[in-house]
Amino acid sequence: MIENATANYVQVNDQPWMPFPATLSTGGIRWKLLHVSPEMGAWTAIFDCPKGSSFNRHIHVGPGEYLLTRGRMEVRGGTDDGGSTATSMGYGYEACNARHDKTYFPVASEFYMNFLGPLQFIEDDGQPIAVVGWAQAQALWSAQMSEQAKTAKKSARLAKVAKVTSPPKVAGKKARA
Amino acid sequence: MIENATANYVQVNDQPWMPFPATLSTGGIRWKLLHVSPEMGAWTAIFDCPKGSSFNRHIHVGPGEYLLTRGRMEVRGGTDDGGSTATSMGYGYEACNARHDKTYFPVASEFYMNFLGPLQFIEDDGQPIAVVGWAQAQALWSAQMSEQAKTAKKSARLAKVAKVTSPPKVAGKKARA
Amino acid sequence: MIENATANYVQVNDQPWMPFPATLSTGGIRWKLLHVSPEMGAWTAIFDCPKGSSFNRHIHVGPGEYLLTRGRMEVRGGTDDGGSTATSMGYGYEACNARHDKTYFPVASEFYMNFLGPLQFIEDDGQPIAVVGWAQAQALWSAQMSEQAKTAKKSARLAKVAKVTSPPKVAGKKARA
Amino acid sequence: MIENATANYVQVNDQPWMPFPATLSTGGIRWKLLHVSPEMGAWTAIFDCPKGSSFNRHIHVGPGEYLLTRGRMEVRGGTDDGGSTATSMGYGYEACNARHDKTYFPVASEFYMNFLGPLQFIEDDGQPIAVVGWAQAQALWSAQMSEQAKTAKKSARLAKVAKVTSPPKVAGKKARA
Repeated sequence: MIENATANYVQVNDQPWMPFPATLSTGGIRWKLLHVSPEMGAWTAIFDCPKGSSFNRHIHVGPGEYLLTRGRMEVRGGTDDGGSTATSMGYGYEACNARHDKTYFPVASEFYMNFLGPLQFIEDDGQPIAVVGWAQAQALWSAQMSEQAKTAKKSARLAKVAKVTSPPKVAGKKARA
Repeated sequence: MIENATANYVQVNDQPWMPFPATLSTGGIRWKLLHVSPEMGAWTAIFDCPKGSSFNRHIHVGPGEYLLTRGRMEVRGGTDDGGSTATSMGYGYEACNARHDKTYFPVASEFYMNFLGPLQFIEDDGQPIAVVGWAQAQALWSAQMSEQAKTAKKSARLAKVAKVTSPPKVAGKKARA
Repeated sequence: MIENATANYVQVNDQPWMPFPATLSTGGIRWKLLHVSPEMGAWTAIFDCPKGSSFNRHIHVGPGEYLLTRGRMEVRGGTDDGGSTATSMGYGYEACNARHDKTYFPVASEFYMNFLGPLQFIEDDGQPIAVVGWAQAQALWSAQMSEQAKTAKKSARLAKVAKVTSPPKVAGKKARA
Repeated sequence: MIENATANYVQVNDQPWMPFPATLSTGGIRWKLLHVSPEMGAWTAIFDCPKGSSFNRHIHVGPGEYLLTRGRMEVRGGTDDGGSTATSMGYGYEACNARHDKTYFPVASEFYMNFLGPLQFIEDDGQPIAVVGWAQAQALWSAQMSEQAKTAKKSARLAKVAKVTSPPKVAGKKARA
């Protein structure tokens, strides 16, 4: 018997924003991975895009749908260049094999997106640089979450040590009195 | 040659809210259909759910993913009853065949959802009442849009007639002066 | 971490043919379930259809693809009636929501089919009778396999008992000699 | 309104076998493209694989299902090497991201396969060489069909010319008589 997939829920605002790889984007884009569907090869994420940030050239190997919840996003060159300029709240369907030479954010923006299949980041001439699908997305997010947990633990330990070894300020003040 | 699917963009806030059928929901839920993908049988919509509204009992024939952008949504009975209580901004993945006996909105809410396959609205004992998939969704939305266009045209015509036949108020006022 | 789906292999000719429910077909159709993909709601099976057999009226809730490996199959009324008449080796793509009022086999036939989403068996007027998706298919096949295993075990036990209690034939023959 | 996908039927044995690119396979593999589903990024084909032929190293970017209708196929190294050795009639499900370093046919074989998403042919170290999805498959098949139609037309014309210009053999024979 093959088991059914499992429902899951993510409190989006409780998840931390993590840096999206600088090799795939510029301007400080951050992300939260919300779900992966390995059987289909689908994944879902939300992105925080500062003013002036952009995603590098890529192809959507399968279809993708986005909901722009904040700001403005220029897709496939934006409306001025034959593409779409999305303004919050905007919805877009990008077909299989859509090539996005530059996805640019002229103002601070946020969008949620469902991907079927991977993104293939490419050179100008179409040569593949990197493939980012559900597996790579989950591996990256998982590593980022572990790192963050370690950092949080270390901070907590340092805070404890600091408390123990710090001079008795209040007592000192009292002594002076 | 079979043609590729076409990209499309919807300015969500420019679309009107339309009533979601009262046979499938209570409390005045409204919706906007954003996309249909007939080949896969997928569709995407956004729902406006007043405080106290709910969707009738249904099964997700395929998987579904939602982003709760405003308010609170109790899925599969909510957290207190073994389900999920989503609070904005919340993301949920509902697996294939998920049965939702009642999806309830304790406060005014809004959510965006991608459906693969139809919703099957059912009786308490599982007997099917109605199937709402991409085709039914598109047919309903299309009818609602035509109706609205006709109403808008009629309103415009009535406004014009009113203007032509209305007494020359300003002139009258002037005459009195 | 959500695990990837698992590869699997089925030696088709080693699997037994099991009766396909008589409520959904006539003429002795048999089947072998080969795979289910719960996350997508997909499933794959092969059917053995005696001369004169047919499937009852149904709708393909999602797209389906078949390979007719033996015989002849009349889909959507067959070629004479606006549908397709497939002759081995024939391939067919049936779109989402395709309604098959009668799928008929004028000669002994066999076909392999991939389904995305369930089949919805319906009355003449479209009223739903039964939904057969990956979950129902897996439940049925699983029950049929258990039943068969029990029967095989019982047969083996009876055979053993028979062997133990049967008179020593050879010895008897020898005694005569 | 977005139109539904269209049903289609292919008489498999009436289609010609075409060479599968020698850059992606060795030993004279031939194929017939049966269907493409651009919206999902799916495609379906049947392959004729001579004894000793093989496919080059590739990754299935999405899941794939095959039916081996003739012969034997060693997938992921075959059973001896942790993979599967399929023997006709065999069915296999290959999960998303399955890496096939060598798919080898020890005897003349034929298999039918459904692909969701592209195949990514790769170097030993994983570097991508070529992506073959529905679009590339359709482009290749379409070019092969045009080429074949031109060749057939040319042959027909040459045959006609040959007929017209050839010496009146029978008459000659008669003359001799």
